[in-house]
Amino acid sequence: MRPIALLTDFGLADPYAGQLRAALARLAPGATLLDISHSVEPFAVSQAAFFLAASAPHFPSTAVFVCVVDPGVGSPRRIVGAHVPNAKGGQDILAPDNGLLGLLLGTPGIAPPRVFDLSDPASSYAASATFHGRDIFAPLAGRLSAGEQLEDMGREINPRELVRPDWAEARIHRKTREIDVHVLHVDRYGNCLLSLRAATPPPWPVTAVQMPWGQRRVVHQVRAYAQVPEGGVGFLTGSQGFFELAANQASAAVILGLRRGDALRLVWEE
Amino acid sequence: MRPIALLTDFGLADPYAGQLRAALARLAPGATLLDISHSVEPFAVSQAAFFLAASAPHFPSTAVFVCVVDPGVGSPRRIVGAHVPNAKGGQDILAPDNGLLGLLLGTPGIAPPRVFDLSDPASSYAASATFHGRDIFAPLAGRLSAGEQLEDMGREINPRELVRPDWAEARIHRKTREIDVHVLHVDRYGNCLLSLRAATPPPWPVTAVQMPWGQRRVVHQVRAYAQVPEGGVGFLTGSQGFFELAANQASAAVILGLRRGDALRLVWEE
Amino acid sequence: MRPIALLTDFGLADPYAGQLRAALARLAPGATLLDISHSVEPFAVSQAAFFLAASAPHFPSTAVFVCVVDPGVGSPRRIVGAHVPNAKGGQDILAPDNGLLGLLLGTPGIAPPRVFDLSDPASSYAASATFHGRDIFAPLAGRLSAGEQLEDMGREINPRELVRPDWAEARIHRKTREIDVHVLHVDRYGNCLLSLRAATPPPWPVTAVQMPWGQRRVVHQVRAYAQVPEGGVGFLTGSQGFFELAANQASAAVILGLRRGDALRLVWEE
Repeated sequence: MRPIALLTDFGLADPYAGQLRAALARLAPGATLLDISHSVEPFAVSQAAFFLAASAPHFPSTAVFVCVVDPGVGSPRRIVGAHVPNAKGGQDILAPDNGLLGLLLGTPGIAPPRVFDLSDPASSYAASATFHGRDIFAPLAGRLSAGEQLEDMGREINPRELVRPDWAEARIHRKTREIDVHVLHVDRYGNCLLSLRAATPPPWPVTAVQMPWGQRRVVHQVRAYAQVPEGGVGFLTGSQGFFELAANQASAAVILGLRRGDALRLVWEE
Repeated sequence: MRPIALLTDFGLADPYAGQLRAALARLAPGATLLDISHSVEPFAVSQAAFFLAASAPHFPSTAVFVCVVDPGVGSPRRIVGAHVPNAKGGQDILAPDNGLLGLLLGTPGIAPPRVFDLSDPASSYAASATFHGRDIFAPLAGRLSAGEQLEDMGREINPRELVRPDWAEARIHRKTREIDVHVLHVDRYGNCLLSLRAATPPPWPVTAVQMPWGQRRVVHQVRAYAQVPEGGVGFLTGSQGFFELAANQASAAVILGLRRGDALRLVWEE
Repeated sequence: MRPIALLTDFGLADPYAGQLRAALARLAPGATLLDISHSVEPFAVSQAAFFLAASAPHFPSTAVFVCVVDPGVGSPRRIVGAHVPNAKGGQDILAPDNGLLGLLLGTPGIAPPRVFDLSDPASSYAASATFHGRDIFAPLAGRLSAGEQLEDMGREINPRELVRPDWAEARIHRKTREIDVHVLHVDRYGNCLLSLRAATPPPWPVTAVQMPWGQRRVVHQVRAYAQVPEGGVGFLTGSQGFFELAANQASAAVILGLRRGDALRLVWEE
């Protein structure tokens, strides 16, 4: 059985994540279940997209991903499956077509993914109208875990047909040497993860960030949190494949007054 | 080894759930451990009873359930085991006798359960006086997981002897066409789960809810969250086997001002 | 494969704990992963030390522990491995050298531990500068889980060389019959876990606690929470191997106004 990774906004207090895992234990007995997180903020598709893109490279190369952040459950939104090939066969990702795949499939250097519309097999399950994670995604994942192929389950579509949200990539202004990014996630330590990939670093130094309200703040390009001067803010690649703003045993989000979703401009002040 | 499902109010911050799982890993090596939730509010037996009744049908048909929400730990309350037969043999549930089994054993259509008083075998373990989950429930669950039978472990009692709380079932007033229910749980999205089973729907339409403070509020009978009109409140069966009040990407609990434990009246305004 | 226990301050909302588990699933496939907790407060080494000392005795006797509460990540702090022998071979604990091992290695009655500096093998991994849990601790744990020995991986050092913090042990004043302790942890129920081991109980009765601000409060020596008089505070050994202050279905921390880290004096008022 292929291992199954789980990413949802169900939280861990309600019994929903437990019921999803239980359904998988019934439908894919023996498959290793690995949580990415169940604590995506409710309906926060961009945060889930970041968690997926940051985590997939560290998961087993044959993993099946079940990603359920699904504000449109019960509406006619599509359920899709993406196959990202690799030397061991590849990872498969199941998700609603709402942008959740946007960051992962844009990862520089990954093999060209194939994408399948699974709405047809999805509609064959006797499902509640409110919990497709347990009632539709779990049985689809069980079939993949047991060896079925996405191409035998759904209709192939052009990856360009997927919903592609505007927070997915940074915008680089070469003339002014500015880069527009979003805060994709604020983590437990107050680090602000940005929509700028470590694999495509800025072609010039970043020396300050411009806040949504116009103010500018100096940042220090560093390699580790411990190198950030006390009271200051560091700009570094960190460990998630994306640039982040961070402080040293303090919260960059608090220091800067930033929240998830905020738009920032990275600037070079010579 | 039979799989073991866990339901507690230990939370996930403290090391208690981890110690319970570790004890089971020692005592039932190889058994699959499946969390329902460890985030039942401290001592909230009715919430745990709801989580159990809503989740058991989705768990493996041979699962052993360890349910520890136990305000009376260290007092002479009984520890009981319930056997709910099914085609694969059946599920066994271990719990303190405090009402936690009340909703599950009242599920319409389940096979008649057998209930056993396990206080005797429980007293044979060298246990702390404060953590029976790890020190008593885990070894009992390990024995069941390894193949022992409840009937060989404890003294059979009449299920009617179990503590049966007053929040367990809705009260239907046929003359006035009103139904009295409790809010068993408010989930992460603000959905209010009610003590009214999907299997026994109201014999008349529900068009409004009457709040604990007397005010009435129109509700819309819908099938999916996406069908609830903006700003409105839906009344639907959802996915948990119980009716719920819900909004569309908004919190019904906030809109209505409801909390877990509140008493409501469902009414038909023609 | 030896089972692997995890103790971090990563939280469960961010994808970090999931990436750590995923790395272990790749590097130690088949090893049972057991969480102690990922909700140590950020950088709270003393809390982690308590969680480890309280939990290790309940974990499998061959477990490998990965403990990552690491304010110094990216600075030249050492990574160490401790081997605590037992009849089945022993438990191995990986941690930064920052005091995290302080309580476990001081446990009365454990076999003399051997400690190894793993900075050399640690430096051989291509690691991010900010996430050594996933990039360094996980591969080290994978090697131990697969059968490698600490003594073949690192340079043995004297356990006395380890960072040893001042919160690690209670101070007993025999003349005045007073004992100085710290609150190592406040749990979900409001119980205050103290730096006084159950194995070394006070040589005289404890009848009151003196708060950091000087006030004294009567405490009742009890065996179970249910024995604490209503509105009162109990002093008991509980289940964690350390004494604690607790109330009966109420929060001792709220009643006493205590927080993690507070210094207390246990007194005998005849």
